Amino acid sequence: MFAELIREGSWLGVRVDSAIPDRKPLPRSDLRMQYIPVGPVAVFGASNFPLAFSVAGGDTASAFAAGAPVVVKGHPAHPGSSELVGRAIQKAVKTCGLHEGVFSLLFGVGNEIGASLVADHRIKAVGFTGSRAGGTALMDIAFRRPEPIPVYAEMSSCNPVFLLNGVLEQRGKDIAESFVGSLTMGAGQFCTNPGLIVAREGDALDRFIEVASSALRTTEAQTMLTPGIYQSYIKASARMQNDASVAELSYGRAENGPNQCRARLYITTAKNFLANEHLSEEIFGASSLVISCESDEDFEAIAECLEGQLTATLHMNEADTELARKLVPVLERKAGRILFNGFPTGVEVCHAMVHGGPYPSTSDGSSTSVGSASIQRFLRPVCYQDMPANLLPEALRDDNPLGLTCLVDGQLLK
Amino acid sequence: MFAELIREGSWLGVRVDSAIPDRKPLPRSDLRMQYIPVGPVAVFGASNFPLAFSVAGGDTASAFAAGAPVVVKGHPAHPGSSELVGRAIQKAVKTCGLHEGVFSLLFGVGNEIGASLVADHRIKAVGFTGSRAGGTALMDIAFRRPEPIPVYAEMSSCNPVFLLNGVLEQRGKDIAESFVGSLTMGAGQFCTNPGLIVAREGDALDRFIEVASSALRTTEAQTMLTPGIYQSYIKASARMQNDASVAELSYGRAENGPNQCRARLYITTAKNFLANEHLSEEIFGASSLVISCESDEDFEAIAECLEGQLTATLHMNEADTELARKLVPVLERKAGRILFNGFPTGVEVCHAMVHGGPYPSTSDGSSTSVGSASIQRFLRPVCYQDMPANLLPEALRDDNPLGLTCLVDGQLLK
Repeated sequence: MFAELIREGSWLGVRVDSAIPDRKPLPRSDLRMQYIPVGPVAVFGASNFPLAFSVAGGDTASAFAAGAPVVVKGHPAHPGSSELVGRAIQKAVKTCGLHEGVFSLLFGVGNEIGASLVADHRIKAVGFTGSRAGGTALMDIAFRRPEPIPVYAEMSSCNPVFLLNGVLEQRGKDIAESFVGSLTMGAGQFCTNPGLIVAREGDALDRFIEVASSALRTTEAQTMLTPGIYQSYIKASARMQNDASVAELSYGRAENGPNQCRARLYITTAKNFLANEHLSEEIFGASSLVISCESDEDFEAIAECLEGQLTATLHMNEADTELARKLVPVLERKAGRILFNGFPTGVEVCHAMVHGGPYPSTSDGSSTSVGSASIQRFLRPVCYQDMPANLLPEALRDDNPLGLTCLVDGQLLK
Repeated sequence: MFAELIREGSWLGVRVDSAIPDRKPLPRSDLRMQYIPVGPVAVFGASNFPLAFSVAGGDTASAFAAGAPVVVKGHPAHPGSSELVGRAIQKAVKTCGLHEGVFSLLFGVGNEIGASLVADHRIKAVGFTGSRAGGTALMDIAFRRPEPIPVYAEMSSCNPVFLLNGVLEQRGKDIAESFVGSLTMGAGQFCTNPGLIVAREGDALDRFIEVASSALRTTEAQTMLTPGIYQSYIKASARMQNDASVAELSYGRAENGPNQCRARLYITTAKNFLANEHLSEEIFGASSLVISCESDEDFEAIAECLEGQLTATLHMNEADTELARKLVPVLERKAGRILFNGFPTGVEVCHAMVHGGPYPSTSDGSSTSVGSASIQRFLRPVCYQDMPANLLPEALRDDNPLGLTCLVDGQLLK
């Protein structure tokens, strides 16, 4: 998709305003705009996607697509695959006859190398996928530079799922089964894992909980990506278990080896959730919290109190339309992607995808890290005024050798 | 132009990827993206543009265009015109039947009100035009919020003008006269005022200096916008006069009243400029520094050492093409707008304009504060997955009631 997009060239955002030499009181110059790469990009891969979001992952692909050189800090959770992929890129760079400096891969335990990389004056932007602590630490370094640079950090998300009453009564059992599948996939180590279930108290919710709990009890414990991630999961689970406002509904089968994640499902009331800030913190792993609402107003109050999220999901049928119409405008302010009657795990790589969202789900809610629109984060516009024709970049030439669609004097022309 | 742009709707950035229910191994959902307003925007007007960059200026217009409510902090340099313009907007809001909360105007001496405004959790972005100290102070407040928000601050720029040798020999006299006109316009209080002139030493430069100096000597002193701006100008002038590596070439006519700016022209060598960081700091007012180069390599070294700029200008003719080809790729990394054979004062409001640039000319070099592309800074993308047809926003409906040009399955369609 990137290859096609690069050739098509709409990312260059070409705009031309023709000169008007006889305009009164002042003539207008010839003005042409294109987007150029922002400069070298530092990429920090995710622990949980050794391929899709690591050395040759989304951030690297979008930076390359924008024409920016990339320096990857390899994730210590998968040094072997990082090296394999890094060597493959190195080979591709050579095959394409590019300068070898367009790609580098650094290794190192601890934070020193990454911190130095972000502080280096030659780096002009940062892509990061990982924890909130890691992301905010890099944001801090980037902000304190003599020349602050943008950090595109994808950090944390609870991915609330609203089960509206009509559909819960109609298809609660099916939804419960799909939910457990989404929750436990990959030991729950997805940034879009459904960590909150918001539903109205009553028989339909009781049945949902019964089906989900019983499905959960038969799930096997799964080995987590790193001992550190496992330790965080254990700590967060203990916090939930010690919280008097939360009850544990069910858990998966017992651990069967080191660093294994046992899926866990909890419940609390809307009132307790609203009063208790820590309940809206992400738990990385197969853990989810059901929030039991007394009224439709509780749904709205919960939506309104949410921090920024990568995703928000509504399960609904026609009977739920009125409440959905109230929730969507709130959720638009809170999330980068709003799903209907599905689960947020599974992020399609396409043109319309937004994998991003308001802080703290990402550091910059105005962009996406997945899909072809991700190229935009590593570009900046430059305007050329009265540039001699023989100096004009190819994209801006009158004869349009790249066959671009351009905004010429306000009209979109091919 | 904004009205036309809003109706045309390309800023909505609509992308649709159709569902592929029978795709293997997994079906594809229906995915639709549009841009929505980021939320309420705080706007800090400029001292030097009571109309174009104040209460109803560029930032307010682009935020309104994006659909974002605006809270303006009125600039204390022009409270009267701020109030007049504010009342006109209030009236327009009423006439259009909009909620009165879409626009507010705050006044107050000192920084307290502005600081509280940026710290308020309901504000989601900041537009600012002013000094580097003011801009970085707001950046700091915005970054330290529990939810950091973007600050689009336009802060300072020296706007280097490179006079290449061919054109300097051919038309040095004309350029010198235009230069003095650009330098002294509005007492030099434009963010695009030409503060640096880079040229090769020799007879042609001597003649340029002679003409410019003599034109400058006949310019009248002009009253500056505020006593504070005048004091800064006096301080900066004293710093230049006390710098042993700088010589004063000429100055305009004497002051004739309080807070008046006397235009000043200085000269230094490339070597001194490169060694002396303070020489590349903006002086807000009619002050410019000629940098005399020994070689073409000096031009390149100076371009390379520049901080981020709003503009960079080349004066050149055909004989200068080779050197221009070397300088343009460097200047693209340094400036938001590159001009040829003109002067940077005068910022056309059009589609292709970029009034922005790498730090510290602005806080965020990926956007523009002038022209129709400025709408983008106050938008963020949202993706809707499998949204029921009766809930879809107008822009995303299959029957395309707004007549938008959309990217459908990767193809740009009307």
